[in-house]
Amino acid sequence: MPLKNTNIVSAAQTKFGALEGVSLREMFSEAVDKATIGAGIPKKDIQAAFIGTFIPEMLVHQGHTAPLLLDYAGLRGLPATRHEAACASGATALRAAIMAIESGMYDTVLVAGAEKMTSVTTNKATEALAAAADDEFESSIGLTFPGVFGIAAVAHMQKYGTTEEDMARVAVKAHKNASTNPLAQFQKEITLEKALTPRYIAWPLKLFDCSPISDGAAALVVTSNEKAKEYTDLPVKIVGSGQASASMNLCERSELASFPASVSAGKAAYNMAGMTAKDMDFAIVHDCFTIAELIATEDLGLFKPGEAAKAVAEGVTALDGDRPVNPMGGLKAVGHPVGATGVKQIVVGYRELLGDAGPNQVPKHDKCIVHNFGGTGASCVVTIMRRGDA
Amino acid sequence: MPLKNTNIVSAAQTKFGALEGVSLREMFSEAVDKATIGAGIPKKDIQAAFIGTFIPEMLVHQGHTAPLLLDYAGLRGLPATRHEAACASGATALRAAIMAIESGMYDTVLVAGAEKMTSVTTNKATEALAAAADDEFESSIGLTFPGVFGIAAVAHMQKYGTTEEDMARVAVKAHKNASTNPLAQFQKEITLEKALTPRYIAWPLKLFDCSPISDGAAALVVTSNEKAKEYTDLPVKIVGSGQASASMNLCERSELASFPASVSAGKAAYNMAGMTAKDMDFAIVHDCFTIAELIATEDLGLFKPGEAAKAVAEGVTALDGDRPVNPMGGLKAVGHPVGATGVKQIVVGYRELLGDAGPNQVPKHDKCIVHNFGGTGASCVVTIMRRGDA
Repeated sequence: MPLKNTNIVSAAQTKFGALEGVSLREMFSEAVDKATIGAGIPKKDIQAAFIGTFIPEMLVHQGHTAPLLLDYAGLRGLPATRHEAACASGATALRAAIMAIESGMYDTVLVAGAEKMTSVTTNKATEALAAAADDEFESSIGLTFPGVFGIAAVAHMQKYGTTEEDMARVAVKAHKNASTNPLAQFQKEITLEKALTPRYIAWPLKLFDCSPISDGAAALVVTSNEKAKEYTDLPVKIVGSGQASASMNLCERSELASFPASVSAGKAAYNMAGMTAKDMDFAIVHDCFTIAELIATEDLGLFKPGEAAKAVAEGVTALDGDRPVNPMGGLKAVGHPVGATGVKQIVVGYRELLGDAGPNQVPKHDKCIVHNFGGTGASCVVTIMRRGDA
Repeated sequence: MPLKNTNIVSAAQTKFGALEGVSLREMFSEAVDKATIGAGIPKKDIQAAFIGTFIPEMLVHQGHTAPLLLDYAGLRGLPATRHEAACASGATALRAAIMAIESGMYDTVLVAGAEKMTSVTTNKATEALAAAADDEFESSIGLTFPGVFGIAAVAHMQKYGTTEEDMARVAVKAHKNASTNPLAQFQKEITLEKALTPRYIAWPLKLFDCSPISDGAAALVVTSNEKAKEYTDLPVKIVGSGQASASMNLCERSELASFPASVSAGKAAYNMAGMTAKDMDFAIVHDCFTIAELIATEDLGLFKPGEAAKAVAEGVTALDGDRPVNPMGGLKAVGHPVGATGVKQIVVGYRELLGDAGPNQVPKHDKCIVHNFGGTGASCVVTIMRRGDA
């Protein structure tokens, strides 16, 4: 049964990038201000907050982020919980908010995510990120995330004949889309030749196959139907939400060219929404690495297994294609401040659905799917949204 | 309006203490096994999991704990999110589960909490715990948690004339109750003289005023009314749940002898349950330090401000008193594996309400209040439960 009572009535993000001199709490406050007073929603209307941060403990020696960040955003005192599922943290915060609204316990809540990553060296950040994998069996013996997705890429290459060029095309598209997105970390187009520069991070993944280390924050106001009317004539409805987990260890997986949690979470979301992949006008997927975008669009049934690369090459996933994917530039070019990402993806979906994406507007924008993915794919949350009048 | 559809149908914990050679995932699995198959509930009935861990990132270099722990507990694939609010992490996981059930999205879910703390030195654990306070303004300049609660103790002493002996009596009661609790870290009674041993940790708090560093896990199965009938004739009903936050900084508080988040969360829970402090037969409060128990019972309205110490001295809060507090020994003597604590408190409430607490059974056990508290009191969750037939 589709969700009946959950609306997004505002959505905002900060610029993503290396935000020198801007602290975690400052970024968070900026996103919350934009999503509340910036959208004409008084802060006093907010009843509770659901906050995604991944690993501020290791990046800025700060746990217990929910009350702290909320306080700095001018919302002291509200119920506030931090939700963590590695890179899917933001979407798990949204899911908690959905349940809060659907339970009738709250009418108007804040969902926000943030991460300050450039506070430490790249090596320290890599070590912190590695905490999202299994420390006893994988990360402690040297497997970091470029390695994890390098393994997935190799599996996909072997099974489907995917090439380094196929992956590079995903990067080219991401940079092209981000070139007109003023909130993106990278706003420069790149050529296929540049994307293929052999600066290998973890073979076959090269520099341009990897999303960057970023700072940033994003926020949403989520309400019941009744409350939504007070703020807007045109909310975005969340109609489906699915979540699944999987073994953290890759060694426990029987298949490496697909992520079982994406498949399960996608099915759950489609079932709840009463829709199929065919109904989706565009998609926002978790492209932490270029190969991840290819696999996600296959796992969600947007393309058949092994056919995503062809769709990219033919322009199907381009901004003006039949099935745009990551129309504003994705994690790859917009940046990936981990806790913010899952919320920022919803911000993108919201703007696109409402026709408010400027030069990045997709042509058809009634319904979309959003895919947020954690760690080695051990967590996945899929959200299906439609424009209120669609 | 009281919650109408949320039941606890099983509850279990591991032994708390320095569990040498037992890893985080092993403890977690033990608690889950006890709460599921140990209670006749097939694991396949569980539809989603809500997991509290505080800071495994710094204690065992492991983030993204929800899917990892769930996998090891034989529940691979389920939706699983980690909830964190410092020492209140466990209760925020329960709150998310309440919303999941009340929203109708799930019928049967797992709530579990765990922490492995003895994996690091006491200094490292103290540094990790300090991440629950404000790093920019307090913890980075040397304020650790014994200091925070030492400040609260001084404020309470100044305002109400509370003495070191008053606090020591809380420790004596805790150890007495834990002496008959085989799952407690400390199972030895202590004399008032011993509790007053002047081994100051942060004046006026001495060694016996402080809860220990512990390992442990706890788990609950939470269901809808319909499902509860399949498992038991006598569930425990959750009728009220309140959560609040406060400034993280003590310097932003106008009052230090009371915690505003406890007051607000308590009021919210009483309101929802349609009950008052007078209705509570016994209480389980967050006694991370002895002073915290005194203040919590005042903040929840169980005693008037400044009168909790007298109640303790007169035996009112003893196991056989009129208003037992922490009948199985509390954090102080049972131990405080941070992420597990909020769930373990519910386990205690469940057992007491069902008359299943053996030598630690309180005489009157229809309704109880449970108070879980995070960091400097910047988070608080209060839960009100009653026996299904009460």
